[in-house]
Amino acid sequence: MKALVFQGPGQTSWQDVPDPSIKDAGDAIVRVDAVTICGTDLHIVKGDVPEVEPGRILGHEAVGTVVETGGDVTTVRPGDRVLISCISACGRCRFCREARYGQCRGGGGWVLGHTIDGTQAEYVRVPFADLSVHPLPSAVDSHDAVLLADIFPTSYEVGVLNGEVRPGDTVVVVGAGPIGLAAIATSRLYSPSSVIAVDLAESRLEAARNLGADATVNAAEEPERLVADLTDGLGADVVMEAVGVPEAFEMCTRMVRPGGRVANIGVHGKPATLHLEDLWIKDVTITTGLVDTRSTPMLLRMMAAGRLPSSSLITHRFELGQMEEAYEVFSRAGETGALKVVLGGPQHTVVSTSAQV
Amino acid sequence: MKALVFQGPGQTSWQDVPDPSIKDAGDAIVRVDAVTICGTDLHIVKGDVPEVEPGRILGHEAVGTVVETGGDVTTVRPGDRVLISCISACGRCRFCREARYGQCRGGGGWVLGHTIDGTQAEYVRVPFADLSVHPLPSAVDSHDAVLLADIFPTSYEVGVLNGEVRPGDTVVVVGAGPIGLAAIATSRLYSPSSVIAVDLAESRLEAARNLGADATVNAAEEPERLVADLTDGLGADVVMEAVGVPEAFEMCTRMVRPGGRVANIGVHGKPATLHLEDLWIKDVTITTGLVDTRSTPMLLRMMAAGRLPSSSLITHRFELGQMEEAYEVFSRAGETGALKVVLGGPQHTVVSTSAQV
Amino acid sequence: MKALVFQGPGQTSWQDVPDPSIKDAGDAIVRVDAVTICGTDLHIVKGDVPEVEPGRILGHEAVGTVVETGGDVTTVRPGDRVLISCISACGRCRFCREARYGQCRGGGGWVLGHTIDGTQAEYVRVPFADLSVHPLPSAVDSHDAVLLADIFPTSYEVGVLNGEVRPGDTVVVVGAGPIGLAAIATSRLYSPSSVIAVDLAESRLEAARNLGADATVNAAEEPERLVADLTDGLGADVVMEAVGVPEAFEMCTRMVRPGGRVANIGVHGKPATLHLEDLWIKDVTITTGLVDTRSTPMLLRMMAAGRLPSSSLITHRFELGQMEEAYEVFSRAGETGALKVVLGGPQHTVVSTSAQV
Amino acid sequence: MKALVFQGPGQTSWQDVPDPSIKDAGDAIVRVDAVTICGTDLHIVKGDVPEVEPGRILGHEAVGTVVETGGDVTTVRPGDRVLISCISACGRCRFCREARYGQCRGGGGWVLGHTIDGTQAEYVRVPFADLSVHPLPSAVDSHDAVLLADIFPTSYEVGVLNGEVRPGDTVVVVGAGPIGLAAIATSRLYSPSSVIAVDLAESRLEAARNLGADATVNAAEEPERLVADLTDGLGADVVMEAVGVPEAFEMCTRMVRPGGRVANIGVHGKPATLHLEDLWIKDVTITTGLVDTRSTPMLLRMMAAGRLPSSSLITHRFELGQMEEAYEVFSRAGETGALKVVLGGPQHTVVSTSAQV
Repeated sequence: MKALVFQGPGQTSWQDVPDPSIKDAGDAIVRVDAVTICGTDLHIVKGDVPEVEPGRILGHEAVGTVVETGGDVTTVRPGDRVLISCISACGRCRFCREARYGQCRGGGGWVLGHTIDGTQAEYVRVPFADLSVHPLPSAVDSHDAVLLADIFPTSYEVGVLNGEVRPGDTVVVVGAGPIGLAAIATSRLYSPSSVIAVDLAESRLEAARNLGADATVNAAEEPERLVADLTDGLGADVVMEAVGVPEAFEMCTRMVRPGGRVANIGVHGKPATLHLEDLWIKDVTITTGLVDTRSTPMLLRMMAAGRLPSSSLITHRFELGQMEEAYEVFSRAGETGALKVVLGGPQHTVVSTSAQV
Repeated sequence: MKALVFQGPGQTSWQDVPDPSIKDAGDAIVRVDAVTICGTDLHIVKGDVPEVEPGRILGHEAVGTVVETGGDVTTVRPGDRVLISCISACGRCRFCREARYGQCRGGGGWVLGHTIDGTQAEYVRVPFADLSVHPLPSAVDSHDAVLLADIFPTSYEVGVLNGEVRPGDTVVVVGAGPIGLAAIATSRLYSPSSVIAVDLAESRLEAARNLGADATVNAAEEPERLVADLTDGLGADVVMEAVGVPEAFEMCTRMVRPGGRVANIGVHGKPATLHLEDLWIKDVTITTGLVDTRSTPMLLRMMAAGRLPSSSLITHRFELGQMEEAYEVFSRAGETGALKVVLGGPQHTVVSTSAQV
Repeated sequence: MKALVFQGPGQTSWQDVPDPSIKDAGDAIVRVDAVTICGTDLHIVKGDVPEVEPGRILGHEAVGTVVETGGDVTTVRPGDRVLISCISACGRCRFCREARYGQCRGGGGWVLGHTIDGTQAEYVRVPFADLSVHPLPSAVDSHDAVLLADIFPTSYEVGVLNGEVRPGDTVVVVGAGPIGLAAIATSRLYSPSSVIAVDLAESRLEAARNLGADATVNAAEEPERLVADLTDGLGADVVMEAVGVPEAFEMCTRMVRPGGRVANIGVHGKPATLHLEDLWIKDVTITTGLVDTRSTPMLLRMMAAGRLPSSSLITHRFELGQMEEAYEVFSRAGETGALKVVLGGPQHTVVSTSAQV
Repeated sequence: MKALVFQGPGQTSWQDVPDPSIKDAGDAIVRVDAVTICGTDLHIVKGDVPEVEPGRILGHEAVGTVVETGGDVTTVRPGDRVLISCISACGRCRFCREARYGQCRGGGGWVLGHTIDGTQAEYVRVPFADLSVHPLPSAVDSHDAVLLADIFPTSYEVGVLNGEVRPGDTVVVVGAGPIGLAAIATSRLYSPSSVIAVDLAESRLEAARNLGADATVNAAEEPERLVADLTDGLGADVVMEAVGVPEAFEMCTRMVRPGGRVANIGVHGKPATLHLEDLWIKDVTITTGLVDTRSTPMLLRMMAAGRLPSSSLITHRFELGQMEEAYEVFSRAGETGALKVVLGGPQHTVVSTSAQV
């Protein structure tokens, strides 16, 4: 089959590789129908994630059709259309028993496209299939469903649930890339009175407004002042970091009100400064986290009911064989306006959606 | 009357000042029967808390007898023996309505010995008396009760409740001064399976063991390794910072397990480094906070039932007039072994308790 | 002034009574601008609430203008337009300190139109004004705001919060009178995937659909079967009782799924049968409660932001002097289609809104 | 092998049956080293549990040694000493994913000695072994550990956690049989200020005091008055029903304070009367539930640390072959004073412990 193989820093290729096969009784082999590229994949390609070894097939988000299952798989069968979660779960370790699958100690967690071969391929082996894939109802489009593999549960669990958004809250989302935009959309499930988006790119602020942000502010234009103005100087109830750089995190800790919460969603490569000399007295809660995907069944139900915006997050569509071109477009998001790019899927045709989301 | 007056950095005196009088209908005038000194008072004397102006009477922890009340006070009467909480509460602002009295926006919060005259005096005016003093049951000793003015509710609310200690948990308390020791004692209310104390002073580690720590380790002797050993390498469920320096806080963030909590209790004067490059993926929750004293009625009930250790936290007792000597002993805790010093109270005699608690 | 006075079972009159005056330093005298009638008022008139004595002015929901305040009132001033909450709060007792104002032991709780004179009058004395009235932002209409005095906080706190509605839930509301309809509307703040309304009156089921119910079913037409069908036989996540009769409550306990919650909002006069022989094994939580109105500030914020439906709940409008006519229309709701009737307010004109909401 | 076989209402025999064998890849075959009898077994023998068919081996609580495992079992191996939980868990269904194993829809839940053969035998097949047995640390005695199969997790989860016992609470436990006594013991993990036990048998009240009850009262001697006296007339914070009859449940609902919780643990065969005419206004929460055993790992840790009383709950010990005699003693608990009887285990000798626990 064809797959996108990491060849070492800076190098990938869409090439022939052996088909995957069942290795454990809990495995499923899934034919990939729709797949996307994550910002994390770009980090891997750059060489920032050293545990990814050359020869690894990348990708951890996909929708596909089960073609074979191990003897122990009971919840899906060949022919089922399924969502492949970015997190696999052994279901037996202490963390899985608490539905904290992202911290799985039994061979799961984030493994696809990381420590085992991933989804940017024609076929993929998914371990622990019973807890790691989700049958899709027919009402859900495969392209839309790809967003449930990572960005919707990540933004919802690590942003909205950790941030404990409640009705009437003022919520600030710093960073309006795909994850930040999904955080804006899923925040709305708890009816905040106001969601404020912060980003440097005007096109992303426009996307934020389209997804339900009540106010937007360019990060270069004193966003802290806007938040103070909108909250009688008190600060926001919940602030989410969806960038992954120290400056953004530190801004979040300045924007939060006494008694409020800062939910970090961003993937960080460097330490930040925590101003405890100001914060020790402020009753602030700061959370971090890797997604567990325990909310995926609920989000799937909401998507089936038409209550999650999806299409506006997908800016570009490709055929599966256009993987290298898709990487190219996605890696130059500043110019191309790419949010999520999806490959494969029903239409299998290139739709050159413009950047105007 | 006599009172301990701040005269500017490095200068205090026990001197004659005018008696306090009722200013607002919610005030109570309380005769001070027992009072203590807080580490924060030492910071004020050094000049570290600029909003404390020269001429201010210090102190925010005391037990006394009500001698006069304003027309609007309904819950206490002259003659009542009361605990004076370190936090006053207007009862009307949005924070008080959530029992977040420490963040009071209506004139309360930490005001005694800070922005209004405090308790290190023969008499003190307490604003918002209905919500800021607590009648004492006769079963509770005045000296013991002084510990309920600040250190027990602080360690319980900001440490144990924010840290969400649960039965079976492994809890680490970094810093075994009065607050850290009170955190060890109040952690036990939730039956952790193991409490580990960390400090540099052997005498404080001994005090920690006396108050129920299951293990102690000198901060200089690789406490992180001990915690790892005791938790199969996973880290502690809850880690509390009770020192107030960046190094201690950073150690806490290295000791916590995935999914665990770091509760900062320490008063910090400098920023710390937050290693988000390690922590973003670890599902960690970090909390800060000023005490609200909303738990004081419950703690009072537990003390009356003999379920809070108290005496072992009080190392020195003085007459009220020995205020300057008491400051002297407390400020040289390294040599004197002082934990809490209490002045006044029933016996009114100096008890030169040794440092061996 | 004029007021609606209870004269004993079956008898009320709109008559001249003395104007109210300040009795305690925490009181406010409020001129009533808009007022409504509650189903509970009808019970009182029938004689079902024996603690209401003849001579009592009825009513516990209103919007008005402050005309005088006691010396201790700090949060409102004469001239302020305010919402009068159905619950008064002393702010000092153990229940008020937990924001459980409905259980106030210090002279508050539900007192207006119950144990002290109420709001169906030209003027009303409101005790504990600082915690019992809420200044109204100009964006909020007085007629709409009357709904925040009781039915919105009651349905939200006792139904939605006690029921712990969460995104994706299936919610059943049994009873589509004013409280049930408000429960449907406020459930939506937590984005359930489906809200099902049950009632005997088709007009109320239509009102339910207008307020956002996804499905409705006549109570006579096997509502349990519909709920089972819509939930794969499992039952609803949350079921709210908004009728106040044993049969409705018992139906709720049959409709809830294992692990689900039954939130009783109805006012009951008779015991119900609890089928513990079925329920003991089902992990069911049942809650009851009187409103605390602790959510009123948040609901006010949501109403000001246009995020609460209001007008569709108000079916009839009268001048204040038409009190007896309003009672007449409201007491024959089956014929008149009355949901909430509002008297007074800006227009002061009769709007004979039809029953078709 | 030998096993206790249900032969229809009123009839059981300790007889020869075929040895169990692996049927599914998730099974384990365990040699039974220690086993006990539950009150529920007596109900089954009487014929009260119709889904138990003649021919069924009874018993759902045991400790044993793994002798064989299916190909899919990864967490235990032959030779491991394990606790067999009364609840089996498929680990895949929606309830298991929430750790609500008692409600398992995938073939687990309470199946042992109910819908499949149980533990009152020399060997037992345990399905879904990875999530249904727990390796025992050497510090834990097999007889003590049998109490972790059902009564400790049941009383802790369904009583203490559902009841939300908190430090300083007044807790009433109605019924001081094995489950009620375990509820008293596990309540202490949350440091209530007072635990009050209610029963008709003086011997059980004495056992309650031995396990930490602060007060006891005979159910015939106005227990409601004692609770009122001890709580200033307010009622208890948490009341647990551990009897399983309507009168006991109804007493619980009269003893609870406004804002308090009633946790039903008892197994009921008849409906109770719920006095909604009193309770609707009282902010009461009532919970029911089957144990999930999700707390078993924590309770095991606490038992290994010596923090759970065990021996005082075991009144009689027998050899495994004395099964019929043990049933006889346990079924006449009123005369024999039996609490828990344990069969088998290291000593394999009859210890005719008297009823004086």
